[in-house]
Order: sequence, then C-alpha cells, then structure tokens
Amino acid sequence: MGKVRFDVSVSLDGFSAGPNPRFDEPLGDGGERLHEWMLQTAGFKEAHGGGEGGATGRDDEVVRETSDNTGAYVMGRQMFGGGEGDWGDGSWKGWWGDDPPFHVPVFVLTHHPREPVPMEGGTTFHFVTDGIESALEQARAAAGDGDVQIAGGANVIQQYLKAGVVDEFQVHVAPVLLGGGVRLFDGLGTDELQLEVVRAVESPLVTHVKYRVL
Amino acid sequence: MGKVRFDVSVSLDGFSAGPNPRFDEPLGDGGERLHEWMLQTAGFKEAHGGGEGGATGRDDEVVRETSDNTGAYVMGRQMFGGGEGDWGDGSWKGWWGDDPPFHVPVFVLTHHPREPVPMEGGTTFHFVTDGIESALEQARAAAGDGDVQIAGGANVIQQYLKAGVVDEFQVHVAPVLLGGGVRLFDGLGTDELQLEVVRAVESPLVTHVKYRVL
Repeated sequence: MGKVRFDVSVSLDGFSAGPNPRFDEPLGDGGERLHEWMLQTAGFKEAHGGGEGGATGRDDEVVRETSDNTGAYVMGRQMFGGGEGDWGDGSWKGWWGDDPPFHVPVFVLTHHPREPVPMEGGTTFHFVTDGIESALEQARAAAGDGDVQIAGGANVIQQYLKAGVVDEFQVHVAPVLLGGGVRLFDGLGTDELQLEVVRAVESPLVTHVKYRVL
Repeated sequence: MGKVRFDVSVSLDGFSAGPNPRFDEPLGDGGERLHEWMLQTAGFKEAHGGGEGGATGRDDEVVRETSDNTGAYVMGRQMFGGGEGDWGDGSWKGWWGDDPPFHVPVFVLTHHPREPVPMEGGTTFHFVTDGIESALEQARAAAGDGDVQIAGGANVIQQYLKAGVVDEFQVHVAPVLLGGGVRLFDGLGTDELQLEVVRAVESPLVTHVKYRVL
C-alpha cells in the first residue's frame, strides 16, 4: 500500500491561500505568489500540457518527484471548482481545464452526488458524498500500490491530519508574507502530531521541507 | 554600520512561543520544544557557561554564527524578565542568570526608567523608555561596526519589521505543531515586506532559513 501524503505551497507566515479566496480568484489576494516558484519549472509546464523552456534544477526535481508514484488524489469541492452553488447545471467541469494535471483518478469531497467526470489525459473526477474516510478508501483502492495525495485545500488537509492517516507531507515555503488568508495548519491542537524532518531542499525561490508523521 | 537582524525559533505552524506564556513559563506551554535543537549544541552550552559534550555539526555552526559580529541586542521587557509588575523593588535582574549569554550591551524596551544593570561576562542591561527608534539608535551606537540583533519577543520583532529597519533574519523551523500561542509574523499586513531567500540549512532537528529584506 502506498503512502498518504500532501504537498502544499505556503507563505512564510503560514497561509496556503491569501485573503478573500473566491470563485474567480481561488488562491485569494496575493495567493498566486506562493506558486511562482512552481509555475516556472519545466515539470509544471509539461504536466499542464504547455510550453517549452521551463526551468530545470532543484525546484523542477521537487515538482517532478511530487507526482511520482501518485495513484490517486483527494480534494475538496472548492479546489475542484468552487462551491457547489457555482457548479450550475452539471456541465461545469472544474477550473483545471480539459486536460487536468493529475492524470489519475481524483476523488472530490462534496455534499452533492454527481456522476464521474472523465477528462483528457487520464484524470477522472469522482464525487464522494459520504465523508473523508470513504474518499480515502476509494482513493486507496484506485491507487493500488501508488500513493494517495491529499490535494487540498487546507481544511481538507487538516481533517486528514486530525484523522491520523497522513504518512508524510512537504511544505514549499515561499519568501512571502501574505498577512492574512487561509492557514495551512489551524485548529490542530497541541501534541496531536509528532513530526520528523525527512529533508530540506534549498533553492533561491522557495524552501522545500518534507516531514514524516510519527 | 552593521546589520539589523533577528534569529527566532518557530514552530511549523508559525508560533514563537506556546499558549499561555507566563512568568514561570515565558515560552508558554510546549514552547521549549522549539529550542530543543539549540539546547543540545556545543555553541549554546558554551555561551551559557555550562557543560561539555554539546553537539557539533550544522546546528552548532548556525548557533555560533548567530552571535558572530553582534555588537548589541534590543529586547522587550517580557524577554528581559517578565512584566514590570514582576520586577519588584529593582533587585530583579531578569531571568538570564548572573552571566547572560549576550556578552554585549542589551537595550530593554520598557515604560519604567531604571539604571543600567551590569552583569558578568560583558552583558549590561540598559532600559529604554522612549521607544523603539531610540532603542535601535542607542544599540547601533553601542554596536559600532557590529550588528544589532532584535532578540524578541515577537511583538518587538513585528514593530521593527513594520518600521522597515530590519535587514536580515533567520527562522529556525522546528518540526513541531504548537496549535496555538504567540505568532512570530502577525499584523504585518500584505505586501509591506519583500523578502529574498539567502540560504536554507538542512538538519534533522530543525530547518534554518535566512531571509534578506529588500
């Protein structure tokens, strides 16, 4: 069985999205600054079906590594495509484009049952209405020996951390102070999680730190 | 003229002290876990006049480096020795012991005028009642070509960051989630500070990341 893990870009002051995340700006005000390090990598450009000339080097190696051995993803409904109120008549397929960068099954936590939505490139969105345990179970089954990635957002990650099922995670700390927004680690309480540093990778644009949950 | 800088240990969720900091537990509940990486280093043990057998290696190098070229410190009254209400008849010399680990002049921000308190080993506590600019000016004068370190706590660091006078800082991110406490970066607003990563140092116990303020 693979690992359950997540990878999140975060500001130095601990926000994974800026203030006022909304339908047309899901990362909130300034939140795109957290991802600048990633957008310029060759690995990201390739995964998103676009462009030449991305940067190679450490950030690129980290980006490529995060999708290695990933057999399925779990994500919140907001990350798929906004609140269900935004999904309209069912033709809305999320904001990841026709060929989303996942290329494996993605299990979306929602309160609204919906048929699976197959996309180009191997991504299929499955909609799970019976809770985080069920979503993880379905994702594990789909992933086989592969890892399950908890894609986000922060509150979904927090639920899985609290449930004690996360094996490993990586934060990509951008040299940015957002001053407000969505905190990656919030409401987790004290002493619930014991962590160990797996490694830290230095780069000019971001600091990648991987932790194991003991 | 030297740099103005600070060095702070912080939890992965962004706290530089745990919940309920108080006179007999100034780091708050669990806050001592942020400093475990440092307490075991040879450099720390030497600076605190105690013991053999400290660890060498990267953490130790970082500890030694932080005091290099430091000509003076500025700190809040809480960091010196609790609230002024705890200072009693004036015989209280703070909680740093007879031979504090600073070994240079230390300027303490307070509302209560007090004569300087010379300690063993080169530390003298000076009490500054006319604000952070005055304290920095006095510290710069005392430091000569040396750096001024803003020792803390978090709210003093935030005041100097907001004033735009900090040149560089280092966070030592411990693999700990405190779940509450005193946030190192708080109330700074968005876009006020532009940062650049100077370097990151990997170690099993902590991740050291140094930033330059642009």
